[in-house]
Amino acid sequence: MLKLCRRYLNWIQNSVFEGEISPVKLKELRLKAKEIMDEDYDSLIIFSSRNSRWLEKEIIGQEKNNLDIFL
Amino acid sequence: MLKLCRRYLNWIQNSVFEGEISPVKLKELRLKAKEIMDEDYDSLIIFSSRNSRWLEKEIIGQEKNNLDIFL
Repeated sequence: MLKLCRRYLNWIQNSVFEGEISPVKLKELRLKAKEIMDEDYDSLIIFSSRNSRWLEKEIIGQEKNNLDIFL
Repeated sequence: MLKLCRRYLNWIQNSVFEGEISPVKLKELRLKAKEIMDEDYDSLIIFSSRNSRWLEKEIIGQEKNNLDIFL
């Protein structure tokens, strides 16, 4: 799942990814994610905003925490 | 940090929280989070949208994965 999501988005923290994606690519990602996840146990939540101006992002602390990979 | 964030927001997955919060409460949460985190190593990312209509949320799979607590 990490590998799949990284192909479409930027990995920002643990199981959180972010990025600009076209509707077609998002559909593709959604389908591929469904193939590898067990929908009875796993969950994937997609927050989307059509316009990046509508979403503010604030980072406190380190922008990229490389230690996350060991968590 | 989990305890702190749960006081202000809903816990949705691992280290991800979501909810409606007033600017005053957000400021309070930001300050308290800074007190308990090591800003050289830890990171907190706040995505905010002033209007919930600007943000779409789609859940694939389980809405609440109780197994997350063991990860």
